[in-house]
Amino acid sequence: MTTAVPLIDEAAASAEVRAVYDDIKKTRDTDYINNFWRVLANDPATLKRIWAGLKEVMAPGALDPLTKEMIYLAISISNGCAYCSHSHGVAAKGRGMTKEMFAELLGVVGMANQTNKLADGYRVPVDERFENLF
Amino acid sequence: MTTAVPLIDEAAASAEVRAVYDDIKKTRDTDYINNFWRVLANDPATLKRIWAGLKEVMAPGALDPLTKEMIYLAISISNGCAYCSHSHGVAAKGRGMTKEMFAELLGVVGMANQTNKLADGYRVPVDERFENLF
Amino acid sequence: MTTAVPLIDEAAASAEVRAVYDDIKKTRDTDYINNFWRVLANDPATLKRIWAGLKEVMAPGALDPLTKEMIYLAISISNGCAYCSHSHGVAAKGRGMTKEMFAELLGVVGMANQTNKLADGYRVPVDERFENLF
Amino acid sequence: MTTAVPLIDEAAASAEVRAVYDDIKKTRDTDYINNFWRVLANDPATLKRIWAGLKEVMAPGALDPLTKEMIYLAISISNGCAYCSHSHGVAAKGRGMTKEMFAELLGVVGMANQTNKLADGYRVPVDERFENLF
Amino acid sequence: MTTAVPLIDEAAASAEVRAVYDDIKKTRDTDYINNFWRVLANDPATLKRIWAGLKEVMAPGALDPLTKEMIYLAISISNGCAYCSHSHGVAAKGRGMTKEMFAELLGVVGMANQTNKLADGYRVPVDERFENLF
Amino acid sequence: MTTAVPLIDEAAASAEVRAVYDDIKKTRDTDYINNFWRVLANDPATLKRIWAGLKEVMAPGALDPLTKEMIYLAISISNGCAYCSHSHGVAAKGRGMTKEMFAELLGVVGMANQTNKLADGYRVPVDERFENLF
Repeated sequence: MTTAVPLIDEAAASAEVRAVYDDIKKTRDTDYINNFWRVLANDPATLKRIWAGLKEVMAPGALDPLTKEMIYLAISISNGCAYCSHSHGVAAKGRGMTKEMFAELLGVVGMANQTNKLADGYRVPVDERFENLF
Repeated sequence: MTTAVPLIDEAAASAEVRAVYDDIKKTRDTDYINNFWRVLANDPATLKRIWAGLKEVMAPGALDPLTKEMIYLAISISNGCAYCSHSHGVAAKGRGMTKEMFAELLGVVGMANQTNKLADGYRVPVDERFENLF
Repeated sequence: MTTAVPLIDEAAASAEVRAVYDDIKKTRDTDYINNFWRVLANDPATLKRIWAGLKEVMAPGALDPLTKEMIYLAISISNGCAYCSHSHGVAAKGRGMTKEMFAELLGVVGMANQTNKLADGYRVPVDERFENLF
Repeated sequence: MTTAVPLIDEAAASAEVRAVYDDIKKTRDTDYINNFWRVLANDPATLKRIWAGLKEVMAPGALDPLTKEMIYLAISISNGCAYCSHSHGVAAKGRGMTKEMFAELLGVVGMANQTNKLADGYRVPVDERFENLF
Repeated sequence: MTTAVPLIDEAAASAEVRAVYDDIKKTRDTDYINNFWRVLANDPATLKRIWAGLKEVMAPGALDPLTKEMIYLAISISNGCAYCSHSHGVAAKGRGMTKEMFAELLGVVGMANQTNKLADGYRVPVDERFENLF
Repeated sequence: MTTAVPLIDEAAASAEVRAVYDDIKKTRDTDYINNFWRVLANDPATLKRIWAGLKEVMAPGALDPLTKEMIYLAISISNGCAYCSHSHGVAAKGRGMTKEMFAELLGVVGMANQTNKLADGYRVPVDERFENLF
């Protein structure tokens, strides 16, 4: 499988793209720009929008960064996105996810996918006490 | 929308079903059997298998029960399962999920679904450093 | 929820649409045209194409009609299509699906959705002996 | 693509894992433990739970094993799970699925995915006669 | 089904939220704030991020606004999102989508979902001439 | 990954299959039969049905062929179908899709997948003015 567009290396990046690359490096305290961003760089507007959004969403808040990474990983696996499962798997591990935590995360993802279909298939009516959330 | 099979109330439950109902009540420290189980009770083997699996998967382990419930909720929302989003939303709230945490969870779910499609659409090749996990 | 386009009743149908309706009735030995077809009738070309395709796919062949209906139902449930789960549930029952068979079908659908995610999440490599099918 | 965790060969398996491997071999009358189980063996609790569940769900019952395997295969294909499509394709073939049956199965899977989206897109209302199932 | 969080009406909105509401009204030349935004307003950071992203993505560019709305609608239908199918259906109609165009759009969505599964199920290898895109 | 069935080359094709191949070549003004059709040719009835349906759906109508190809591509990407994303990417490019249009298409696909989940997760009620479409 070949990528749909070329990867934009740092040396070949425009000033606009390099500014995003620099912010990624600084925010993540790394020297490495991974392929996802080097592909998005073909469309600088998308690169800027997605990076700004991701940076905001993944920042520490009411949820800590590890929990956020594990939710991100769980969704990526459930959606069958190979790239995202690889990159967010490593990111979650970097935040502290152990092999045991990963196994339990997969256990929950599998169980949720199973019971989601049982609930849909049996058309289970929502209990009155579950109607309101906040 | 009507349920595909009748709900089995406790009064009408067989001894086999009642034993599961009793374990649900004890494990969850509640008097209430929600509709999901009352529907599964039409097939006692399924009721027992799913409850035993769920009980094992959701027990405290390397991940705490709140994190597990939030991952369960995130998957249920991403899969569009209305019943499960309602029931696990309330369950996560009961474990301590605040409105702010819920908003951040949804932010991550939305962002992951967005970037999953960008990574697939651009066919981003997996970086060498993301190849191995554990 | 309101339908996106009006339902086309038999009395109001064009000759082109009525010909399809008549074939549906004859093929299924029924007097009833269900809502799916009455909605498709807004676009006669689609009505004809989908009906001809469905009639061909669901005809007895190497697989019997009940097995085909149960596969159709399983997919519709797994995809979360409420209309199709209702209509193909009743169609499968009409072909002989009992409540016990339905429960087992749901058990398989749930289990498959669970293990699909485990296999994806663990990135299980395909065994050499599974590479070729026919 | 590399697997997320190492494969656990029989020689390296703990007694707990080997007991499951032995039951797989006996139940399936085979000498071969396929990669799915060798990956799950990294988490013995998951290995035991998933194997016990799968064994129960796939046992002969109201539905015969071939029908169950074909439903499993249909879901795996519809979900885009490559590993499961490979393994359950071979399993269904071992139970008697011919090339003609496979072609018809795919025809149904494709048609269901098509009409699921038409029904959703047109928001077809459920016919009164489809409301109740069992 | 009740909403997970309260709707924030304009009268009750904070200055931060009202600024977004005002930009939505101005950009879309309307007096109406639809429910999606009134729900997001519970988390002003999300409201601002999603609105800014949507405004940028849906602005005229290499693709005209009608084409963008139809792609948005097609995805929303394919994902089974009822709210989005309703809102983007009306938005596309407002941009010029006729009933005939809608029928053809659904025809393409249905056909794509069908052939996607056939290609996956038959594991069709990518033709050499399809490997590179841009 | 190996294909599930053999590819049927033109030289080895039956008269029935060759007739479809000839119509594909004529309709598309090409000498090349891509792998999708060469796989479907294992089941001539499916080959004929799918080709006839696709030809009808993708013909110029209320929507022009480029718009149809881009919707097809958007769905294929959103569904994670690698083969279809490759083939319809090249087809859309052949119809006039530029790199800029592709980037905007992906932007819309990503945004739609994001907001679909937010709308589902917040359970946004459909606005009265969105209830009717045509």
